[in-house]
Amino acid sequence: MSTFVVVGGDAAGMSAASKAKRDDPNVDVIVFEQGEWVSYGACGLPYYIKGEIQSLEDLVSVSPEEFREDRDIDLRIGHEVVDIDPSNRTVTARSDAGEVVQEYDHLLVATGSEAVAPPIDGLDRTGVYTLGSMSDGKDLREYVGRARSEGELQQPDRGPACQFLETCNGPVGIVGGGYIGVEMAEALAENGFEVHLFQRGDRILKQFSAATSEAVFDHLNEQNVAIYLNAEVRELAGDDAVQAVVTGDDRVPVEMVLVGTGVRPRTDLAKDAGIELGETGAIATDAYRETNLPDVYAAGDCAEAEHVVTSEQVYVPLALTANRHGRAIGQTIAGTPTEGGGVAGTAAVKAFEVEAARTGILDHETARDAGFDPVTETIEAKSRAGYYPEGGTVRVTLTVDGPSGRVLGGSLVSEYGEGAVHRSHALVSAVTEGITVDELSNYDLAYAPPFNTTWDPILTAAKVVDSRR
Amino acid sequence: MSTFVVVGGDAAGMSAASKAKRDDPNVDVIVFEQGEWVSYGACGLPYYIKGEIQSLEDLVSVSPEEFREDRDIDLRIGHEVVDIDPSNRTVTARSDAGEVVQEYDHLLVATGSEAVAPPIDGLDRTGVYTLGSMSDGKDLREYVGRARSEGELQQPDRGPACQFLETCNGPVGIVGGGYIGVEMAEALAENGFEVHLFQRGDRILKQFSAATSEAVFDHLNEQNVAIYLNAEVRELAGDDAVQAVVTGDDRVPVEMVLVGTGVRPRTDLAKDAGIELGETGAIATDAYRETNLPDVYAAGDCAEAEHVVTSEQVYVPLALTANRHGRAIGQTIAGTPTEGGGVAGTAAVKAFEVEAARTGILDHETARDAGFDPVTETIEAKSRAGYYPEGGTVRVTLTVDGPSGRVLGGSLVSEYGEGAVHRSHALVSAVTEGITVDELSNYDLAYAPPFNTTWDPILTAAKVVDSRR
Repeated sequence: MSTFVVVGGDAAGMSAASKAKRDDPNVDVIVFEQGEWVSYGACGLPYYIKGEIQSLEDLVSVSPEEFREDRDIDLRIGHEVVDIDPSNRTVTARSDAGEVVQEYDHLLVATGSEAVAPPIDGLDRTGVYTLGSMSDGKDLREYVGRARSEGELQQPDRGPACQFLETCNGPVGIVGGGYIGVEMAEALAENGFEVHLFQRGDRILKQFSAATSEAVFDHLNEQNVAIYLNAEVRELAGDDAVQAVVTGDDRVPVEMVLVGTGVRPRTDLAKDAGIELGETGAIATDAYRETNLPDVYAAGDCAEAEHVVTSEQVYVPLALTANRHGRAIGQTIAGTPTEGGGVAGTAAVKAFEVEAARTGILDHETARDAGFDPVTETIEAKSRAGYYPEGGTVRVTLTVDGPSGRVLGGSLVSEYGEGAVHRSHALVSAVTEGITVDELSNYDLAYAPPFNTTWDPILTAAKVVDSRR
Repeated sequence: MSTFVVVGGDAAGMSAASKAKRDDPNVDVIVFEQGEWVSYGACGLPYYIKGEIQSLEDLVSVSPEEFREDRDIDLRIGHEVVDIDPSNRTVTARSDAGEVVQEYDHLLVATGSEAVAPPIDGLDRTGVYTLGSMSDGKDLREYVGRARSEGELQQPDRGPACQFLETCNGPVGIVGGGYIGVEMAEALAENGFEVHLFQRGDRILKQFSAATSEAVFDHLNEQNVAIYLNAEVRELAGDDAVQAVVTGDDRVPVEMVLVGTGVRPRTDLAKDAGIELGETGAIATDAYRETNLPDVYAAGDCAEAEHVVTSEQVYVPLALTANRHGRAIGQTIAGTPTEGGGVAGTAAVKAFEVEAARTGILDHETARDAGFDPVTETIEAKSRAGYYPEGGTVRVTLTVDGPSGRVLGGSLVSEYGEGAVHRSHALVSAVTEGITVDELSNYDLAYAPPFNTTWDPILTAAKVVDSRR
């Protein structure tokens, strides 16, 4: 009988706990979760705030009771682990009931990430939100509900939903043009808010290709989201409550600000225990997610992972990796050593009526640092047969190594429902397997008029970049 | 200056002609097409008949004028090639203006396929159709238009569209439950016809997995298409006009019958010239699509191709292969020897509000013949995050080699728009690259709530089959 202790009860932690217990019922599995929520889909928060999901509970994939009763996991919520003592193989957890010291044979650190606080004055003003936790989601939903019920009429011509609601809420500011910024722009605008989005760099969704960023930018503009590029936000001004977003150029009146400028790994606990961090600042692990300390693992948003293209350790905190690595650790602890695989930096986002996905290496500097000589091309193609009554446009960007033709990365954007995201699955395979664009262009992909042109846009992109490299 | 002669002006022929001329403008390119249509999308015919596409011309991707004027191709429609003389390197073509003998340096035989006439009495009766050519499409559209304008009221409770049209047309019979049969069931039922579909075997869409066949079968039933499985059609009975479909068990009154029991390669011309056929009955070629005769190529629906999984020569006449192999031949003739790649037997179909795709080897006998020890599993998973307001179900079937875990084939089905077809792209890559389900299960696929669950159904299927092999 061995004891597996997990610190953190979200994707990585609960996946590991569940898999270890299922594969070896003799393992005692104890999970300490600081908050009150476990195994929740934080990715769903924008849709909860938007009002498309009725209850926070709906975001929970497995309830605490199910973990305890059906899966026989000793789940302790409201327990903050304050110390790991690797020499004695114990952790100390603190709760309202006091402190407990728990021995472990295997330990998983799955402490997740926290919102980065950018160097902006006024982050502590009322009306300034971040979106990392379930309680953040609850607060934002309440804000949206309050503003809507008050039915304030601010600037009736702004915001796509204003025309339907006969009132326009806000204005509100979003600092950061990444996934959260873009998804929240939709959530707020569709609730009748006038939305102002501030992006420090020269384009939004900077992990995607420039062509994808441009397409999403154009679409957000069509939806009346005001976007400020190259905008260095200096201050969220006001008295108690925020009243304006102040950049070098503008002072934009707002009633609320969402700050979505990225996350960083929560590593204090690990660091104090002597667990090594990597160059990215996240916890370093081997291919089995084991840290420098024996039998101590790390996974999810607090840990690094190897990139499938560059073989470099990178920090890409996303839900699937957390689940996959957690599951692999559970399997390892149950007796079958399992690598969880690397990451391709794949991501998807919906923004109003467009969808986008990206995978692999798109950035030329990163590609060159890894020894490649990158070439990038973007094509635009019909999403279905030209004569088919429905359909739209898919833009595909491919970055390949010029000399070898190896596919390094891809980025796709289309109208929502026209398949940019699901088509990206083929590119994940391409970058993971290291295949060339010539090979890719010869793939026998499915074709029928309601789904694509005879040459799927992926194939057209491969042909074009192959001819120009 | 060399001369490239192409026999047949559809996908393979026109792709080869265009690519050869574009890559080497010094090549003289002459195309003989027996009919009046070139470069048309026969795959669009069901949607033309359904009424979603207004004109047959809409199915033509490049017009004869464009080929002649913009692409400088000597395109001669209404010219039937009646003889190939490989010793003198000439072909003889017959038109209304008489015969011409044309020399060639390179020749492409792209004579396509023709509908198989099954051993059924009464195929020559009025009201019996096949769907292989543009003129077939025209005839069927006229039939649909006539029947609709006459507004006959036959059996008002049958056919999904009857409730809207207040009349019910038909009844009509479809012999064959493959792509054409299924797509035409939709086209006819949506026009208010009572549709009876007769399938010889025990399931429709037999190239797909049993789970996919079952899902499509259930959906067709919901749409009030009557399906007769294990139905050996003996006769299309009637006087001049067809009046009933007669099987061993039933005699079903009909006004029209569509026979869609597959196609066979058109090889008479090739055979007479001494071009070797393969075991499948289609023209045998090497990896460059060259036949046993030097400088004589064959591609498209008249030719075999190598299967990417089994390395066997197979006959899978589909549009993308024709385009891809035609293009490769054009490139070869222009001076860059190019293999067009093999086939994975990938196919997609829409049936009313479901979509399905398949790729690779699903059939256990075929897999065993190729030296594999196949295992098949089917999973059912949500197409989007469970809490997301839209979404449906994807069923994924994977067939893998048990000992090695290599992915041999896959079949997917979902509601239309829920991504079965575009998701199949990842499986094409898997079967082509010979990867294992373990590798597949570790792919870093795109995830966001509007597009999938954290583990895309493809990954879930890979995990499940990996645990059971």
